[in-house]
Amino acid sequence: MPDWRKNLRDVVPYVPGEQPKSDNVIKLNTNENPYPPAAGVRECMRNMDISALRLYPDPEAGILTDAIAQYYSVDKDMVFVGVGSDDVLAMSFLTFFNSEKPVLFPDITYSFYDVWAELYDIPYERPVLREDFTIDADDYIRECGGIVIANPNAPTSLCMPVCDIERIVAANPGVVVIIDEAYVDFGGESALVLTDKYDNILVVRTFSKSRSLAGLRIGFAIGNPELIRALNSVKLSYNSYTMNLPSIVMGAEALKDDEYFRKTIDRIIATRESAVARLCDLGFCVPDSKANFVFARHESVPAAYIFDNLRKENIYVRYFPKPRIDNYLRITIGTDNEMDVLFEALGRVVNSYKKNKKSVDI
Amino acid sequence: MPDWRKNLRDVVPYVPGEQPKSDNVIKLNTNENPYPPAAGVRECMRNMDISALRLYPDPEAGILTDAIAQYYSVDKDMVFVGVGSDDVLAMSFLTFFNSEKPVLFPDITYSFYDVWAELYDIPYERPVLREDFTIDADDYIRECGGIVIANPNAPTSLCMPVCDIERIVAANPGVVVIIDEAYVDFGGESALVLTDKYDNILVVRTFSKSRSLAGLRIGFAIGNPELIRALNSVKLSYNSYTMNLPSIVMGAEALKDDEYFRKTIDRIIATRESAVARLCDLGFCVPDSKANFVFARHESVPAAYIFDNLRKENIYVRYFPKPRIDNYLRITIGTDNEMDVLFEALGRVVNSYKKNKKSVDI
Repeated sequence: MPDWRKNLRDVVPYVPGEQPKSDNVIKLNTNENPYPPAAGVRECMRNMDISALRLYPDPEAGILTDAIAQYYSVDKDMVFVGVGSDDVLAMSFLTFFNSEKPVLFPDITYSFYDVWAELYDIPYERPVLREDFTIDADDYIRECGGIVIANPNAPTSLCMPVCDIERIVAANPGVVVIIDEAYVDFGGESALVLTDKYDNILVVRTFSKSRSLAGLRIGFAIGNPELIRALNSVKLSYNSYTMNLPSIVMGAEALKDDEYFRKTIDRIIATRESAVARLCDLGFCVPDSKANFVFARHESVPAAYIFDNLRKENIYVRYFPKPRIDNYLRITIGTDNEMDVLFEALGRVVNSYKKNKKSVDI
Repeated sequence: MPDWRKNLRDVVPYVPGEQPKSDNVIKLNTNENPYPPAAGVRECMRNMDISALRLYPDPEAGILTDAIAQYYSVDKDMVFVGVGSDDVLAMSFLTFFNSEKPVLFPDITYSFYDVWAELYDIPYERPVLREDFTIDADDYIRECGGIVIANPNAPTSLCMPVCDIERIVAANPGVVVIIDEAYVDFGGESALVLTDKYDNILVVRTFSKSRSLAGLRIGFAIGNPELIRALNSVKLSYNSYTMNLPSIVMGAEALKDDEYFRKTIDRIIATRESAVARLCDLGFCVPDSKANFVFARHESVPAAYIFDNLRKENIYVRYFPKPRIDNYLRITIGTDNEMDVLFEALGRVVNSYKKNKKSVDI
């Protein structure tokens, strides 16, 4: 009997961090912003013309694209928008990575990159991060089909200097270099300055972290107009209208309140620096984070043990049972209150492990 | 000098109907609903918890999926949702059409099907519609890599009996048969009844037409749980969170007001039947529409001439300069007022053509 199952695309999907159904959870597992979106977004939603929903949205999402272009002082034709940076990145893989040569990205990085490569049958290789999780730019100066670097990198939280990125971009004029700057607003150094100088760099950003709008699904890319045109052609071959009306108008609105934006960023950075100090006090080793999360390893308590025990107390952090990082926890920076609850629990968990260990040792 | 352009995906994108910037237009070119969404949608938007936008939406869009399952009396695991039916269809192509054999769809149909096939390098063949634009089911009873049938078909507006669809589905257990029912609510016969009986049929629907929510981007598919699981795996390999919070909650809300839904459908059907009669009076030939649009050819006035002249009067209809249909216009059913304006203009355009022709003949 013939069977349609033989024609299925074979994939191993990305697994996102858990979205608990209960409200009674301290959620530090998906790098969301602990603060609400700018107040103008609420007004904008209240005043939205509901009858306009009967119409298809602008396929170019013009209002949003214009707002992004203005905010970053680039031409409108240098901006592409999508349903979160995942949509932008997936479409970029499909658009730009059509070589027989492997696309390069680090062995430890955002775990969607290899999923997209597998989805679209794109060959790839993963240069190994240094022992301290930094990226060696020289690993990316070689023949390849494209390059993707998350900067700051996830889940390591480390930032690469832009001079290193420029070396990579300049040395690879034959391929597109994607810099995924999902976390750059939290203290990283942006490669946006290179988009004028090089025609083969695409910088990808998101409204999900620093703009507190993960629930709206807005990502964007900035690059030279030819790259953007190519992306738009593929987008228009996939779905004419990816951005819905609420995301277009509310996204544009969110960019207007720069004071609120800077205030929340500053608060998150201050909370992060305090969290790093408290983690060190508890015996954690923490690489220098430029993101809205930290990546921490305890000197003696296994990460899986901490993860499980925090979860029992309804505190969710992220644990990746993968080679080289299976003794680390990725902890999103929450409000100061949430961090206080976390640290109280962390203290208990670390102590209880040590106590148990001691009694076993005796 | 090496050049990244050589690795670009080569596509010829779908061209959506024009979205005019001016309000001063009678827009009958993209099959939108002339009536606003159900009143509850407005309340739902007003009451939406804006602070929840800082969080990622439910990747399963549970509230919306549940509402659809309940509305159509199917299990939740038989429902897949996406960013408009275009997203659902594109993902279905990628998931189910991975055979060396060609996928089949009519030569005249929704012009995105061949775009998706080209995008994903899927071989395809297009059986020719009969002279009267009906589909011959026998053309689809043969070895192939999959089948896609829009029913009612677009832009022809004709509906195929479900018994013919059942013959196709039953004869092709080795491939997935997609029935695109974007327009079925306007009087077509649905193949949903077959989803319990056959495991290789996927029925795709949209909120963009009958639900007046094109601006929210919601489409869905109903099929056996194994098909839906496969679709979800590919979806999770592309973008974990495709549906944003407004579309999830407002989409679910829209399904609650069935009275309003039926009322607007009935009005559109009544307007359509009246439009068909008026078109015939003006000398148009109009196939039997089961959609929210008609596909009309004038006995003597070229479609391109009518299209251009309506456009000059700010009345937008759709014209496809393609073989076999380049003398037809696809006209969306608007409000009765909009149709009155259309017919007044149509009368003028037809008469002016005949008058000019007569004076040239003399």
